[in-house]
Amino acid sequence: MKFVCNGLTLSEAVLKVSKACAVRTTAPIMECILVSARTEEVTLFATDGELSIRKTVKADVFEEGEICIPGKLLADFLGKLVEEEVMIASSERGAEIRYRDSASFIQAMGAEDFPKINLEIGEKSFVIKQGDLKKIIAGTTFCCAQDDSRPVLKGCLMEFGDNLEMTALDGYRLALSHVDILAKSGENSIICPARTLAEISRMLTDDEKEITLYTQGGMLMVGSDDMVIVSRLYQGEFIKKENVIPSRFTTVATLPRTELIASAERAAILNRGDKNNLITLDIAGDAVRISSASEAGNVAETVPASAEGLDLTISMNAKYLLDSLRALGEEKVVISFNGPISPFILQNSEQKDSLYLILPVRNAS
Amino acid sequence: MKFVCNGLTLSEAVLKVSKACAVRTTAPIMECILVSARTEEVTLFATDGELSIRKTVKADVFEEGEICIPGKLLADFLGKLVEEEVMIASSERGAEIRYRDSASFIQAMGAEDFPKINLEIGEKSFVIKQGDLKKIIAGTTFCCAQDDSRPVLKGCLMEFGDNLEMTALDGYRLALSHVDILAKSGENSIICPARTLAEISRMLTDDEKEITLYTQGGMLMVGSDDMVIVSRLYQGEFIKKENVIPSRFTTVATLPRTELIASAERAAILNRGDKNNLITLDIAGDAVRISSASEAGNVAETVPASAEGLDLTISMNAKYLLDSLRALGEEKVVISFNGPISPFILQNSEQKDSLYLILPVRNAS
Repeated sequence: MKFVCNGLTLSEAVLKVSKACAVRTTAPIMECILVSARTEEVTLFATDGELSIRKTVKADVFEEGEICIPGKLLADFLGKLVEEEVMIASSERGAEIRYRDSASFIQAMGAEDFPKINLEIGEKSFVIKQGDLKKIIAGTTFCCAQDDSRPVLKGCLMEFGDNLEMTALDGYRLALSHVDILAKSGENSIICPARTLAEISRMLTDDEKEITLYTQGGMLMVGSDDMVIVSRLYQGEFIKKENVIPSRFTTVATLPRTELIASAERAAILNRGDKNNLITLDIAGDAVRISSASEAGNVAETVPASAEGLDLTISMNAKYLLDSLRALGEEKVVISFNGPISPFILQNSEQKDSLYLILPVRNAS
Repeated sequence: MKFVCNGLTLSEAVLKVSKACAVRTTAPIMECILVSARTEEVTLFATDGELSIRKTVKADVFEEGEICIPGKLLADFLGKLVEEEVMIASSERGAEIRYRDSASFIQAMGAEDFPKINLEIGEKSFVIKQGDLKKIIAGTTFCCAQDDSRPVLKGCLMEFGDNLEMTALDGYRLALSHVDILAKSGENSIICPARTLAEISRMLTDDEKEITLYTQGGMLMVGSDDMVIVSRLYQGEFIKKENVIPSRFTTVATLPRTELIASAERAAILNRGDKNNLITLDIAGDAVRISSASEAGNVAETVPASAEGLDLTISMNAKYLLDSLRALGEEKVVISFNGPISPFILQNSEQKDSLYLILPVRNAS
């Protein structure tokens, strides 16, 4: 194998593909990028068994062939190359990298042992606007579980029906959001790993363009121009959202979002050492009182609000409240409660396409 | 005590002073800022016993007095306040902070136990251009030792004589730099903690203005407008630089700095896992070969150079080489050697006011 390629193009492509390289594995080949040179292009491919990324770049191919090069090392090395042209060739000593009058070698492996991944995923397809997909990924994945106690919760439930509805939850809070589907061939319900969604989001460069998601037998595929992402999906049961999202409420308050964020941030500073980072809302009439107390002192602020229903005192983790408030875009936010120990929900006042649910914390005091 | 002050001004001042608050101490008062309100100004003061910072801000003082407030907490809290006006008052419950119609309390302590620090330092004075002082601090302190094995090496030797000469060393490398003194009352030689120098550097806002450094009995004082920094100095012996900096060399090479940095960075990537991060220079005739090798592969690049004296192969820690090259400003750098196991020095080609010395590493291969 031997090809010459623009250094910057190659460096950027290798960096993107290297996100799918396995880390800390006992099989070194899984940490590699498979580099294949064919006619006038070079294909870079990496997989860790769950996430696979393939990208193609234009190149002058002098000798066809393929080779496996450690992905992280190659990405870092090419990242330091500002040269116009880079030549990569397979040699006895590994991958030979030439630029200007310098020659470097990186230990490489043969391509024969590189895992074969089926990228022909196409049973069902769903067309979505790139900007919409980016927005719904950003608005839900932050609620995915971080730990491995229930692996399925490290993914988002994606229900392709009349529209695309995504659900994420970690046991303490839930995000639910939907966007339009522009065209589709069928319906499906999948659980996609959050890290796959993060890479898909990074791939989306033009909010106005469309992107097609394909599913088939436990796999998801997304392709754009010269890049393809394929991911294994999680199998398992997601909580039924109809069972946890209440439809009737005893207290409903409408608040100014920016002010509420600023107040909650100040209240959260006083007890950020605590695990629960507890802050308390007192809802009564035309104001909401935000307060927190710890050994270090106490904060009590008042934010104007319009509240309907019963007066209420309720405590929660400040981080969960702040995450949701920041994800909601509009200036007016509606928070709906069912007493001090039932979950409450947050939504924008106008555009109701996203909903956040948070479990309150029983305040010992 | 009771005063009203511009929120942003107060927040910025508290943040600066809080850098001198002790962290993880058994004496909570050392983590506090002493806030004193007198006539039309408020003085903020913090000390950890080594570094002390005092800053004064204009305020409407309604009641004179003083109080000690936890510094980090106050800085974070005020940092989240965007209000025009903030009122701080001492009350039974601690420090009362009022803004708009909100009131918060932070646990505070009485001022009587706050350590008294003598800020009247003025036996000897040295006037330096702010830009020069900033430059010499940046050019030397990165060579200070990081660990506590020889505490005195966590400081810089500052010799106020015909000019200000600063020396920093960590046992593996040394930095030596000098700048002009514009006016002085005497001479002195002190060892100043690197962290004090970092705070002094942050205080310098106008490169063209002058700043005066005062010393007296093991203490250093620097004042600018409304801010004063006082620091205890280290006592001890610094290595005699005459004994370590050679004056004659067997090989002298002049190299392009940017190209050498880029090559050394690429060479360093291959063995960054190693403790020594070893790279090798081969100096011969009109080129220098930069190479490194590890299990992952090997890099060999050639940088054009003009070399005089004996041919030489020498190995070193890439980080030390790169730190020094980045600190040298000019495009041409002169490196002078005395064989493969003696320290070598780096200087700019024209402006010789900074010098870096690095110990080579014996290459096992």
